Amino acid sequence: MALLRGNAIVGQSGGPTVAINASLSGIIRASHKAREIEKLYGMKNGIDGLIEGEILDLSYLFGDEKSLYTLESTPACALGSCRTRLQCHKESSEIYKRIFYVLKKYNIRYLFYIGGNDSMDTLCKLCEFSREQDYEIRIIGVPKTIDNDLMCTDHTPGYGSCAKYIATAVHEIAADCLVYSANSVTIIEVMGRDAGWLALSAALPKHYTGVGADLVYFPEIPFSSERFLRDIKRELSSHSSVIAVISEGIKYENGEYVGASFQNGASDVFGHKYLGGAARNLEALVGRKIGCKVRSLELNLPQRCSAHVASRIDIDESVKIGAHAVKIALEGQTGKMASISRKGGDVYEIALNSCPLQCVANRVKYVPLEYIDVEKSFATKAGIDYVSPLILGEREIEYKNGIPVHLIIK
Amino acid sequence: MALLRGNAIVGQSGGPTVAINASLSGIIRASHKAREIEKLYGMKNGIDGLIEGEILDLSYLFGDEKSLYTLESTPACALGSCRTRLQCHKESSEIYKRIFYVLKKYNIRYLFYIGGNDSMDTLCKLCEFSREQDYEIRIIGVPKTIDNDLMCTDHTPGYGSCAKYIATAVHEIAADCLVYSANSVTIIEVMGRDAGWLALSAALPKHYTGVGADLVYFPEIPFSSERFLRDIKRELSSHSSVIAVISEGIKYENGEYVGASFQNGASDVFGHKYLGGAARNLEALVGRKIGCKVRSLELNLPQRCSAHVASRIDIDESVKIGAHAVKIALEGQTGKMASISRKGGDVYEIALNSCPLQCVANRVKYVPLEYIDVEKSFATKAGIDYVSPLILGEREIEYKNGIPVHLIIK
Repeated sequence: MALLRGNAIVGQSGGPTVAINASLSGIIRASHKAREIEKLYGMKNGIDGLIEGEILDLSYLFGDEKSLYTLESTPACALGSCRTRLQCHKESSEIYKRIFYVLKKYNIRYLFYIGGNDSMDTLCKLCEFSREQDYEIRIIGVPKTIDNDLMCTDHTPGYGSCAKYIATAVHEIAADCLVYSANSVTIIEVMGRDAGWLALSAALPKHYTGVGADLVYFPEIPFSSERFLRDIKRELSSHSSVIAVISEGIKYENGEYVGASFQNGASDVFGHKYLGGAARNLEALVGRKIGCKVRSLELNLPQRCSAHVASRIDIDESVKIGAHAVKIALEGQTGKMASISRKGGDVYEIALNSCPLQCVANRVKYVPLEYIDVEKSFATKAGIDYVSPLILGEREIEYKNGIPVHLIIK
Repeated sequence: MALLRGNAIVGQSGGPTVAINASLSGIIRASHKAREIEKLYGMKNGIDGLIEGEILDLSYLFGDEKSLYTLESTPACALGSCRTRLQCHKESSEIYKRIFYVLKKYNIRYLFYIGGNDSMDTLCKLCEFSREQDYEIRIIGVPKTIDNDLMCTDHTPGYGSCAKYIATAVHEIAADCLVYSANSVTIIEVMGRDAGWLALSAALPKHYTGVGADLVYFPEIPFSSERFLRDIKRELSSHSSVIAVISEGIKYENGEYVGASFQNGASDVFGHKYLGGAARNLEALVGRKIGCKVRSLELNLPQRCSAHVASRIDIDESVKIGAHAVKIALEGQTGKMASISRKGGDVYEIALNSCPLQCVANRVKYVPLEYIDVEKSFATKAGIDYVSPLILGEREIEYKNGIPVHLIIK
């Protein structure tokens, strides 16, 4: 093991989840224990903070157990986030030089970055540049995304809590829709631009309680309006309230998004189109073709920030993977992302590992076809078994004046 | 006190809330204790069940303490609901005769109906018809509505839980929106067709924690696009993420709904227009006139069914008011709605009373102007003080397989 003494820095990047601050807490906890790490700094707004030299001293901010617990119950990113995409250093090395100027100034030898596949791309480029520098630094990615679409890890921190929110909300909405005896169709749109992992979680309440989504549509399967209407009619023939959950990213056979006509054409800096509106389009379709009461709703931002109903398994694992990132860095690893594998056997158990950053950067893990029952427009038993353990357990949440307590650095 | 022995029946009506089943539980608990009441029946789907003779025997369904506790944690209406509006019996007495045929058949002497102002109208008409019958029956309404817009009661069961959900969601969404440093505007639409009571609750997180809605717009105040844009710009001048909460029912000075252009023109059987789309209209306005990042979302159905984050105060009071309805019926009252008054003093305390049904039927209680700070587009201290105690406390929720446990009669 190559001993490397110095300071460490951590940043958070990309879209918020309920579990990013739990991974931050894991990094803080492990860094405080590590004799090789003198001080832990935080980047304000991810890599932007590193570029601009906006560096926070975390030892003052989260000094005690109580604030770490509250941090783990706070949604989004306590350090702020960014969506900055680094150009390759061979095209423009200016920013990389500034970053390394700051790293050297603070004697930072360990860099931890919590993010998704875009953030892992940023780390890949940093690693590449660092190899040409005469400055030893170990760079480790920590996965996070509600979308659960990162390669090389059984699942991603943040996914379980989002899945638990969706399962809970769909269960409650289904109870709400049951109250009238007249036929009705309710179409619920969940997040998931490319992969249907979040849609998968919507199958849980019906499977376990009989009350939930009757139909689930995945972006992995080309969407057919005819099959959708046939599914709805089949369900309506046996019960009056039908709930269909669709992924925001469902597309027709020709590749066009079902939500396309409601898009505003805007896209983010990574070229991803802003989606939304698929459920509204399908609401209009059901109204025209079936004619019963129909409504649509998007679960929207509460999916990724409902910390008050976080999965305890997810938060616990997120803390552990943060600590694991510190551990493997101390062991000498660099250019890696901390990852989770699921052990075989009847009882859910995980192991923490690592994988090369380039296996994750810019790639997407889709829901495997054996998790999708295309005939029934639902999840298979294998799909249910995959997601079930990830939503288990509740965290004790502190409320003050009736509102959950967060730890916010403004 | 006029002793009246016989059976009782309870029904639930109108739009679901998180607390209707808690009031049902209170009625069940008190009826079981009452020596005058032999058996408690339930109407399936409100007054429709009474018309069709679809009657449930509740003693079998909710026999023990554990199922009553679960019932109190189940959103919507365990007995089903309806939106049936009774015509005046002078125009058409057929339905009234059928109802009284069923009431007599089951020897029902006590009728409890949990609902909003439309349901109280139904009860009024039933009472009027009953006075001409040679059959003694006592009819009591139990208030419920997330909208909190019933006259003659300090607040309505179901409002506090919806307010707690909104305060929690707005607090979490505000944390989510804080993560980026670029200017952004987030417009959140909450329910409230006529009155801004739910919008009022959105002021709580900012007041208590500093993180929440910066601006709140009420249907009681004519909406001005110019003032809205001025408010947004003022907020953006001091911080980058601005959160505006609007009531779905906000209208321009000329009486037109801000969400009008997104309406489909449909209305329910009471002639109320389906609303929605105000936030989307304002999103487009901010995009055109200010040009920063802007998004809109509707909190939608989760507002009225998120039992997992119910207000303990609300659920406890809902059980009590159900029991109180039984108590006043046993005392000889009829043609009344059970109601809540708030005692004066520093500590929140309520008394349970009753008021004539016709004071509630078809009337709307608006947010008083002293609760609204028109200058700042926010709530006043008096408004905050009104709503604050209603969201206090959390209930212990049972989860199974990671999902809240409900008591559903399918």
